Amino acid sequence: MFTVRTRSSGSPARTGTLRLTHGDVRTPAFVPLATKGVVKTLEPHEVAGLGYELIFANTFHLLLAPGPELVARFGGLHGLMRWDRPIVTDSGGFQVFSMGHGNVADEVKGRGQRAGREREGAILAIEEEGVRFRSYVDGRERFLSPEGSMEVQAALGSDIALVFDECTPFHATREYTARSTERTHRWLRRCLSWHARHGPEGQVVYGIVQGGVEQDLRRESAQTVAASACDGIAIGGSLGADKAQMREVVAWATTELDRRAPARPRHLLGIGEVDDLIAGVELGIDTFDCAMPTRLGRHGVALVPDPLARWRVDLTKASWRNSVDPILDGCPCPACAHGYSRAYLHHLLRAGELTALRLVTLHNLGFVARLMEDLRAGIDAGRLEEVASALRAGGAPGATSCTAG
Amino acid sequence: MFTVRTRSSGSPARTGTLRLTHGDVRTPAFVPLATKGVVKTLEPHEVAGLGYELIFANTFHLLLAPGPELVARFGGLHGLMRWDRPIVTDSGGFQVFSMGHGNVADEVKGRGQRAGREREGAILAIEEEGVRFRSYVDGRERFLSPEGSMEVQAALGSDIALVFDECTPFHATREYTARSTERTHRWLRRCLSWHARHGPEGQVVYGIVQGGVEQDLRRESAQTVAASACDGIAIGGSLGADKAQMREVVAWATTELDRRAPARPRHLLGIGEVDDLIAGVELGIDTFDCAMPTRLGRHGVALVPDPLARWRVDLTKASWRNSVDPILDGCPCPACAHGYSRAYLHHLLRAGELTALRLVTLHNLGFVARLMEDLRAGIDAGRLEEVASALRAGGAPGATSCTAG
Repeated sequence: MFTVRTRSSGSPARTGTLRLTHGDVRTPAFVPLATKGVVKTLEPHEVAGLGYELIFANTFHLLLAPGPELVARFGGLHGLMRWDRPIVTDSGGFQVFSMGHGNVADEVKGRGQRAGREREGAILAIEEEGVRFRSYVDGRERFLSPEGSMEVQAALGSDIALVFDECTPFHATREYTARSTERTHRWLRRCLSWHARHGPEGQVVYGIVQGGVEQDLRRESAQTVAASACDGIAIGGSLGADKAQMREVVAWATTELDRRAPARPRHLLGIGEVDDLIAGVELGIDTFDCAMPTRLGRHGVALVPDPLARWRVDLTKASWRNSVDPILDGCPCPACAHGYSRAYLHHLLRAGELTALRLVTLHNLGFVARLMEDLRAGIDAGRLEEVASALRAGGAPGATSCTAG
Repeated sequence: MFTVRTRSSGSPARTGTLRLTHGDVRTPAFVPLATKGVVKTLEPHEVAGLGYELIFANTFHLLLAPGPELVARFGGLHGLMRWDRPIVTDSGGFQVFSMGHGNVADEVKGRGQRAGREREGAILAIEEEGVRFRSYVDGRERFLSPEGSMEVQAALGSDIALVFDECTPFHATREYTARSTERTHRWLRRCLSWHARHGPEGQVVYGIVQGGVEQDLRRESAQTVAASACDGIAIGGSLGADKAQMREVVAWATTELDRRAPARPRHLLGIGEVDDLIAGVELGIDTFDCAMPTRLGRHGVALVPDPLARWRVDLTKASWRNSVDPILDGCPCPACAHGYSRAYLHHLLRAGELTALRLVTLHNLGFVARLMEDLRAGIDAGRLEEVASALRAGGAPGATSCTAG
């Protein structure tokens, strides 16, 4: 289901194609979130129009509403959403455990402990069999097990299912992480076993590498997952306290995977900042998902080729009140191509107009799509280093030499 | 600037064309609100794509933010918004007075007194010179006069400006309404006088008929406005406690206008329910504006050809949880044409997904656009009565004999 086209000479980076039931996905690729069955503010055909071939839906949220039975009655998520390209579903582990461990984005990625306490109690018990929790939709007690997660994902009809794992937080002890990672490996076997017997035809399964920030645990986890019969491999859990550590932790995993499962596709869970995407591609990651481009969009923050500003411009700031400039000169996204000024977007954002949230979302997803296209073109042309340098220095995606010509 | 094409034989209804600086508008027409410089949730090109040729922007809100100076620097609203078709701006009177008289939609239209007290105090003084009020944006004291309103509308660069009027509420006494209507007439003269000297080339001015629900005051007001040099005539203020009274009040005005200003276009302010649009067209109204189709859309309520349900279906209701049907079979709007089921829209609305607010807005505006197209076709074919009956009986807009063939 995965074909490598070009291997980079100077790095583990590679281009390839995922051949899935609902179509092909050119890699490396960013995968926009369709958490509750929609890419927030957009229609599916618009996401496809930006060049995306794969979206990432959320088993946990869709289990609670509208529920797998309803989704199955519509012929799966594809039928419900009217999206005819591939879909990957996560297992729900990330969300279930975030209820116990606190705010996921902050906590699992190691950015502090706030919000943890508020939501404590939503998770009721973590057992070998699975996890008991309370639904945020109707307050009912629910149970999710490895087999249960695979069953829901079968009903959702995704092209790629992820195995159920415990997503250990940054602040877990080494002992907790070790025990948790072992249980995740036992759950991996249960998921694969359920899927071999009951999985829908055409759905492939990715295992998940855990192990926190402990080198030996990460490497062992990568070895264990690589030794399993999974079709692809995701890297999850805590990746460290900062970007440097994150890259180190990812490299431990990818080094093992390069050795033991070079032909299987790799997904990096929850990572999608511009510099992290470039670094991830250089480490040999094939796909990425992240809330960042869409979430920033809904906060009026647009992506621009400005590394010193973390590739961001906050359009809600008063400095843009009079700006006649578009978000980004020459950008082909609908927001820029239709000629809306920063001043107009600023006005709409200040006035709380939903149109603006959508326009900045379109811009951000367009920006990331072109970034990935540049990286793919760079690898295929044997010039990844040059392309990555240009992008890191503030080159606009879509304007690098490999794609512009 | 207005040409009547066909006069209905059985009623004062007529089709025509408004020839404005930014293009032609076929009438009768519904005019979607772009209150703060955007039709909520949509882009301008999408509004045009639904068939709309004119939008309605709000002087009061745009005065406060982003301010007329900024709008003028962008070449007016057309430049700021990137909308190249005609725009009508109201005068701000409706909003200014609603601060003193309470919630506009409920109070001015006679539907109770709630919300009035909460907002009292935002209006500081009503004087012959104009109105002093406090800005909801920054709390600053502001002043709006007839001349000031026209000056702002000149800066906005609308195709049609409305004169500054006092919008008298339903619960005002006859004496208050009489005095207020007289002042509105003095303000009409001041507006026209300012505009004759300073108005931008290509901008036309509509006078406004007030007079509340008093027959003699309404008729006198219509006579006074018809006797002025205004280019078109709007009907505003309180139109009564129910639909029957509203139609009676509108008829007093249109009867006078038919006699004294038959060649000038007429706009009915703030009215846009399906049955009211049909009745308004029969009374000889040429254009209508109303928040209803867009506001309902943002609350998940879609327009359908079901008179017994006031042409509405509330998609947030649990009854649609499993519905595979689109909002409306055969509807060409983006929401229906893309095949989204009521179940999917219900799920998205319950999940708070902005995509759904936009889809229902698109559907509702599409519905109203086709309704108006049917009424125009009915008049031109000499079959308005038949078309109106079919629509009132639950015929789907766009499927009546005059347009379907």
